[in-house]
Amino acid sequence: MGLVVQKYGGSSVADAEGIKRVAKRIVEAKKNGHQVVVVVSAMGDTTDELIDLAEQVSPIPSGREFDMLLTAGERISMALLAMAIKNLGHEAQSFTGSQAGVITDSVHNKARIIDVTPGRIRESIDAGNIAIVAGFQGVSQDKKDITTLGRGGSDTTAVALAAALDAEVCEIYTDVDGVFTADPRVVKKARKIDWISFEDMLELASSGSKVLLHRCVEYARRYNIPIHVRSSFSGLKGTWVSNEPQGDQPMEQAIISGVAHDTSEAKITVVGVPDKPGEAAAIFRTISDAELNIDMVVQNVSAASTGLTDISFTLPKTDGHKAMSALSKAQPVIGFDSLRYDDQIAKISLVGAGMRTNPGVTATFFEALSNAGVNIELISTSEIRISVVTRADDVKEAVRAVHTAFGLDSDSVEAVVYGGTGR
Amino acid sequence: MGLVVQKYGGSSVADAEGIKRVAKRIVEAKKNGHQVVVVVSAMGDTTDELIDLAEQVSPIPSGREFDMLLTAGERISMALLAMAIKNLGHEAQSFTGSQAGVITDSVHNKARIIDVTPGRIRESIDAGNIAIVAGFQGVSQDKKDITTLGRGGSDTTAVALAAALDAEVCEIYTDVDGVFTADPRVVKKARKIDWISFEDMLELASSGSKVLLHRCVEYARRYNIPIHVRSSFSGLKGTWVSNEPQGDQPMEQAIISGVAHDTSEAKITVVGVPDKPGEAAAIFRTISDAELNIDMVVQNVSAASTGLTDISFTLPKTDGHKAMSALSKAQPVIGFDSLRYDDQIAKISLVGAGMRTNPGVTATFFEALSNAGVNIELISTSEIRISVVTRADDVKEAVRAVHTAFGLDSDSVEAVVYGGTGR
Repeated sequence: MGLVVQKYGGSSVADAEGIKRVAKRIVEAKKNGHQVVVVVSAMGDTTDELIDLAEQVSPIPSGREFDMLLTAGERISMALLAMAIKNLGHEAQSFTGSQAGVITDSVHNKARIIDVTPGRIRESIDAGNIAIVAGFQGVSQDKKDITTLGRGGSDTTAVALAAALDAEVCEIYTDVDGVFTADPRVVKKARKIDWISFEDMLELASSGSKVLLHRCVEYARRYNIPIHVRSSFSGLKGTWVSNEPQGDQPMEQAIISGVAHDTSEAKITVVGVPDKPGEAAAIFRTISDAELNIDMVVQNVSAASTGLTDISFTLPKTDGHKAMSALSKAQPVIGFDSLRYDDQIAKISLVGAGMRTNPGVTATFFEALSNAGVNIELISTSEIRISVVTRADDVKEAVRAVHTAFGLDSDSVEAVVYGGTGR
Repeated sequence: MGLVVQKYGGSSVADAEGIKRVAKRIVEAKKNGHQVVVVVSAMGDTTDELIDLAEQVSPIPSGREFDMLLTAGERISMALLAMAIKNLGHEAQSFTGSQAGVITDSVHNKARIIDVTPGRIRESIDAGNIAIVAGFQGVSQDKKDITTLGRGGSDTTAVALAAALDAEVCEIYTDVDGVFTADPRVVKKARKIDWISFEDMLELASSGSKVLLHRCVEYARRYNIPIHVRSSFSGLKGTWVSNEPQGDQPMEQAIISGVAHDTSEAKITVVGVPDKPGEAAAIFRTISDAELNIDMVVQNVSAASTGLTDISFTLPKTDGHKAMSALSKAQPVIGFDSLRYDDQIAKISLVGAGMRTNPGVTATFFEALSNAGVNIELISTSEIRISVVTRADDVKEAVRAVHTAFGLDSDSVEAVVYGGTGR
């Protein structure tokens, strides 16, 4: 029996009862003979409450101080969790990100992990303790300041520790039973995926699936750490994410892993762009100078009569305002006609490595949408993903239609969402 | 202009408004040309809320984890305070006890400061920042674990930092205007003391005055750091505690500094102790083996007819049960008749170095109590203090009578209590 890293999100430790429930589950793993390292997020709404306090005190809180503030959240949950475990008769010690050796760069609020030096953790588990580590936080290499890792930070902490400690598996406990073939809140007959490759999981994550973030999966793939996503509320097996199926996992990969959707993006259309070399470059240089990331890009075929074309792209709604004003400012130089902004869109993506060798996939996808009366506005494809943009109002129907068309529907309703939303 | 250490208690930073008010005051000191280091406690009820959470999770929380938990409180207040200061256009950085170099022993929940190595603080203030330091916490020398300093810990942090940084003064901001000649909630005409010696302040602190704790004053005396106790709510000058009066402080020390009272003690009487050598020693060995501290001790004159005597002593009520059961167990060996326990007592103390050279003080004290109809049960004296034990019901009347008898009454009502109780 080797070393297991377990990560519990905020909804799993939302209150004293939750902490005690999680403590029992941790102790079970220890009793089964594993060395156990636990990464924990802040309790339920703690982070939101702290952000609220910060906003009362200062409209633009300093990054360094904001990180100092937020990290109090994990400090509370990890100490309580260690107490709860000791109360069950097992030894536990909690460690801050800094004590656990999570070394980051100095970019406050969204630091990147540079290195993990888990000497104290190794010492603690070798002495028979269960080690509890604060997720989401680290210490900056140069200034020794406390940093936070930003969205999905606790999952990344867990995977990074698993890699540094050469763990057998990184278990991500959350409030759903695993990764599903579609969002169970939209598709009642969504099926839990038993095993999915890193590659497909990365595509799902960047297409709107929220169970695991891209960043964490990318880290796991780089260090080849199997992830087991499962519920902290039920005792069920969850979803394994790894290079190759192992043990009793299904040996053959499905053609299609799942359908993801995303309603967090907006579409900007640059209308009447002169169809000559350098125009598209000028537009996207403007966007990148504003430090904005874009997702899909489509350029219409130029109308021969005018010599003008339209260029559309999508980006996070939160960056919409910045992008529009950057482009407006650049309009005289670039010389387009006008800008259109549309935040009533949805992106629907079909992901599966199997589509490489199954030429009919694209046709089936479009037919399903067409039969459901859903209009397609943009299309973009990768080797293992097809994404379309539709009206936001059509998203649920579109996802369900595609899910059914690819035979992903379960015979019964499987999915249960237990708590709130994990972090 | 030199370096000032300011300490703000939990009631001063109870909410966002309090934090902003305190930030303004800190910035004023900086504007006046001082280097400023601020020590801050947890916000208002934070600590109690965290203790409550711990109790929900575990009946006997581990010391190490309890400290990890509680230190989240200062982390929140100090980060918010730094944000509020930056919002006023001044640079501020917050530091945990560990970052500030507060090195302690490993006794969790009541660690003692061994050393202070404030290199990062010095660097921060020399770079023009206001440094905000978490009170009440440190890091253990051997294990590098987070520790807390126990009651009055934040005041001690402030004085220790002031000593290590060679500060001009340590300002303790609280919710009263300073140290008073008696508890203003009992004596409306209590007067604020402008200056008091370390010696008298130590006696007041150990006699029940709660403004400064003994431990903090003792530290200040050892390193000769002047303390200025004052309100964070008013702009008034407070009370200076130092070796010698300075500047515009009154040059001559009052005969009597003040009257303190304490209702937190109980009295145990060991009845019918054989009046022979070794009996008292056996009783107090029993108490000290149980690791209990006692305060006053009185042995009655032995009754010649019986050869038996009574021994009474006082100790904190919280230790009462432990002491009674230790003595009960030792009864067969020591051979006394019975035990009496009384927790309806009060201790009233008169403190002042001037009483050394004023022989009438004791007489005036007892006359005042007698005129007020207050019965004296025990008496104990030091060179600069007289303490008596009375019925708890008599305490207010007794304190007022003594206060008036020594001419301490102010012409007007001076004292205002602004917030809750500081920590």
